[in-house]
Order: sequence, then structure tokens, then C-alpha cells
Amino acid sequence: MKIVSSGNIHLDITLNLEKRFNEHDFCWHENMSQAEADLKDADVFITYGEDMEPHHIETASRLKWIMIVSAGMDEMPFQEVAAKNILVTNAKGIHAVPMAEYSMHMMLHTARKTPVVQAQEKEHRWSREPVMNELYGASLLIAGAGAIGSRTAELAKAFGMHVTGINRSGGESPYFDRLLDVSRLPEALEDADYVISILPKTEETTNFFSMDQFRQMKQSGVFINIGRGNAVHEQDIITALDEGEFSHACLDVFNEEPLPEDHPFWAHPSITVTPHLSGISPMYQPRAMEIFEKNLTVFLSGKGEYINQVDPVRGY
Amino acid sequence: MKIVSSGNIHLDITLNLEKRFNEHDFCWHENMSQAEADLKDADVFITYGEDMEPHHIETASRLKWIMIVSAGMDEMPFQEVAAKNILVTNAKGIHAVPMAEYSMHMMLHTARKTPVVQAQEKEHRWSREPVMNELYGASLLIAGAGAIGSRTAELAKAFGMHVTGINRSGGESPYFDRLLDVSRLPEALEDADYVISILPKTEETTNFFSMDQFRQMKQSGVFINIGRGNAVHEQDIITALDEGEFSHACLDVFNEEPLPEDHPFWAHPSITVTPHLSGISPMYQPRAMEIFEKNLTVFLSGKGEYINQVDPVRGY
Repeated sequence: MKIVSSGNIHLDITLNLEKRFNEHDFCWHENMSQAEADLKDADVFITYGEDMEPHHIETASRLKWIMIVSAGMDEMPFQEVAAKNILVTNAKGIHAVPMAEYSMHMMLHTARKTPVVQAQEKEHRWSREPVMNELYGASLLIAGAGAIGSRTAELAKAFGMHVTGINRSGGESPYFDRLLDVSRLPEALEDADYVISILPKTEETTNFFSMDQFRQMKQSGVFINIGRGNAVHEQDIITALDEGEFSHACLDVFNEEPLPEDHPFWAHPSITVTPHLSGISPMYQPRAMEIFEKNLTVFLSGKGEYINQVDPVRGY
Repeated sequence: MKIVSSGNIHLDITLNLEKRFNEHDFCWHENMSQAEADLKDADVFITYGEDMEPHHIETASRLKWIMIVSAGMDEMPFQEVAAKNILVTNAKGIHAVPMAEYSMHMMLHTARKTPVVQAQEKEHRWSREPVMNELYGASLLIAGAGAIGSRTAELAKAFGMHVTGINRSGGESPYFDRLLDVSRLPEALEDADYVISILPKTEETTNFFSMDQFRQMKQSGVFINIGRGNAVHEQDIITALDEGEFSHACLDVFNEEPLPEDHPFWAHPSITVTPHLSGISPMYQPRAMEIFEKNLTVFLSGKGEYINQVDPVRGY
């Protein structure tokens, strides 16, 4: 079996796989231009999912399985993949831990007035006046109740927060106190001390959070966006903050990335900007390749179920 | 029954108590000079514990119970209290929630390189280079395994951390993976990514963390002090950081408070200084007075057990 990767996988992971599956032929490459030749007779291909073009699928005559070491698959040539009936799996869910930690961090950052406390520190000024708030007993609203939202809810519950999830259909989920369908967003916003958007980029989510939603928030409310920039109307967020509709925004994702140097978000006193780093983690590859390793056992033995099998016709 | 307070208790709390215990006489004052006259024939006295002198005890002829609305009792005239066999209760344990949240915050703050990320933000600079770490899977060592340590351990476990506690005698506690006695501190330090001191101020704890301990830490290790300043050798912390023995210190308590403006801690790039605010919380009085309310029911009915009864002979 020939297993080819274009994904620049860390040495400790590749050595471990070669040792464990030593009867198979692994070809590790740093990018697609290096991997292309080997891909032609590969049985299995490992990719970050952004480097495959239709001709790669057409010329890979033996290809039976593509492992995408990420969750985003916007650039995959799914039509060709589906036509050749190639198995596709991805690394969905591995962002849950770092992104939930980012979310808890930003809630603590704002609750404990970190920008003010750090400014005092710079001036060597001992002042205990900034009002410290607790997360314990506060209300959290999470829009998008998938793996990241659930992990965030799990941590928030440990802190003693009241956690509401919003998704298309309501329903139940173990870490949420309640899951509401999207029609109940207005009442959920009124009740929330913290609102986190983990919405994916789709037509439905564009400007999901606009002036109407910001007006429904508590004046003391904090808004955090770790999903996609399109879910927030950027000018409305500034207007709403300036008019006191809510108190602070922590933004990790933007319509244009990198955020332009002259964008008003950077200098706004009520906005914390971070450069799309909520999902960055040293555990990214280890977790993604653990999914690969488990799936490889299924692939070789024909026994068990694949983790994160993707339907190439639907594209998810 | 006459119940007198020198503790400047919030109006919503006093109104609630007067309504619930309306057959009793409450006298609410903002400080001891206002309360002194009423204390002379008080049955119950509510105080922050720093304003009582021996003569107050001697002249309070009917006094049967002192509720101390804090945990520190260094300034209580316990000898006189013990001689008159007055019941003493305090508010021990109410710092657990905010101080555990502070601890989690400082771990996330350092793991996610907040000082660097915020400096970039000030320069409108989009850089994803700062290395983000996770708390998930990291090791936490907590010196002082009481209510605050246990709540911190509970939150850290939810994050997926490995939590070791150090106390005098080892033993077991539900939220720690292991509790070691103090003789095993060296091995525990070697293993820890984060070390939190919640040690009280006693002779035994003075300079508990000195050069030897800092040398045993990981070079990537983070040290957090929320207990008392005396537990840390202040010059050693600077020397150890400068010599790379560990990577960062978050200090909330100091030998001299307020920390003098020219103290080298303020400007040290590897030290985060906060002005003794880990325990500050809007929930402080509500939680302390909830203990009072429960104890008042026991006091009036003679049934049940007091929360946080203090032995005035031992002083704790």
C-alpha cells in the first residue's frame, strides 16, 4: 500500500506511523509540487485539502482514500472525487479544545478588565478599582452548537455559567442548559452576558449579527466572534459599541484577513482584535493524524467505522 | 435579639435579613466608630474582623456570637473572646470562586501569549507567530489544597489538566489527581507546567519558593502567587527568571502592598503584576452574608451545625 502526503507532517508523527505500519510504503512531502509524482500511484493521500485540483484526481489511478488534515474543504474537487468513488475523511472536531480555551480566555479577559489592569501595570500604578466580575452565575449564549460550541459549553458549565445554545432546530446536547432554535435568538440575546458566534460561512449566516441583534444584547454584554467574519456586520458592531448597545467585542475572524492596518477595529477601545489564532495549537497535527491512524486501521482491516467520513456529493 | 454590624453591608442584603428575621432588632453601621454604642448591648456582632479591640469585647456584656465577614483574622482579640466563651464564625471559603477564576485566567493569559498579542494589536500588526499553547494535557501543581486550591483543581480538571496538590500531609481530595506531602515538592515541581502558590502567611511558609524551587521548575514553567507575598523570595524570583530557570511569573500578592512604584517587578518583561485583586468579587458580601444567614437560623433555633465555626483558642 502506498501512502503519500503533501501535508508537511512532523517527523515524530511520520516515524511513529512508519514503525507501526512498517509493511506499507510512506512518502512524506512538504507540498503538492513535491508530492505530485508519488500521488500518481498512491493508494492513500494525506492533504490539508487546499492543494488538490481535478487533474490530480484524474491521474491518481489507484487512489482509494483521501485524508484531509483540516476541517475546511471549500477547495476540494469533490465532483471528480465523487465520480471515482474515493473515500474521503477529514479532521473535523480537532479545533474544539483550543477554540474553547480561547473563548474562556476572552470571557475572563473582559470579566477581569485585563486591558485596564495591564495599562495600570505599565504605569506602575496599584489600583484595585477596576470592577472584577465572575463567570460563575453569568449567562453564555453560543450560536453554533457543534464540537467547538459543545466543548466551550462544557468548560463554561464547570465555571458555573448558564449556557444556552442556538442552532437551526433546537434539540438537546449534554453540555447546554438549553438549545433553542434560531427563531428564539432575540430572547436569548436579552438574557446573555456573553455571546459567542461560532457560525460557519454560508449564505444564511452573512450579517447574522447586525444592529437588531446588538440592540437586543445587555448593555454590559460581551460579544466574541471565533466563527467566520461574514457572520458579523462590521460597521454595525462599531456603531452599536459607540451607542452603548453592548460593552465589548473580542474578534478573532474578519471579512478581510489579515485585517487591514487602517481598519477601525484595531484602535477601538471596546474591541479586542486577535489575528485568527483561536484554533492555533501545537496539538493540531497530532490530533488530526490520530484520526488518520485510527482510520488507517479501519482501511487496512476492513473492520470498524471511519471517523469523520465525508460525503463528496454533499461536500460535508 | 439585637444584631449589630460594623461592616457596611449592602442595602439589598440588610433589607432581606430584616424582612426574613423581622422579630429581631438589626443595627447596620458603616464602621466601628458608628457601631460602638450599639455593640455594648448587642447579642450578635457582624464585623470584617479588623476593627475589634479588647475593650470592645469587655464592654459588650451580652455578646454571644461574632460573625467575621472575611477569612483573615490576624487582628482579632481572640484571648478576650475565648475568655468570655463567645461563638465565632467566619466567611472562609468564599474566595474560592473568584481566586480560582483568576488562576485559570492567568494560565490562559500566559499560555496564549496575551502580552505579546496585545502589543501587536497596539501596532495594528497581524502576526500569527506567537506560539499558542493549550491548558489541555498540561500539568498543574497547587501548593495549598484548601477551598481555593480545590476549586482551581476542579476547573483545571475540566480543561483536561493533570492536577497535583501539595499539602502538609498528602491524602486525598476529589478534584486532585494526586495529593503529595511537602517532602515530594521537588519531583512535583519538575513535572509542572504551571505552579500556583495559595499558601497562607505563617512562619513555615516564608520563602517557601526560593532559588532551589525555581531551579526545579521546567524552563517553560509559569509560577502564579495568589496566597501571600511572604511565600516567595522576591529577589530569587527575578534572578531565576533572568537566568531562565522558568519562563513567567504572575504575582497578585507581595511582601509590601501596595507594591512600591519603583519595585523591579512592575517593569520586568517576564512578570505580570496585578494589585491583589484575585479575591475581589461583587459576590463577596452576598456569599459571606449567606453564611451569616444560615448560621443565624442555627443560632436562633439551637438546631443544626454552624458553618465555619472558629476556635478562638487556636485562632482558626
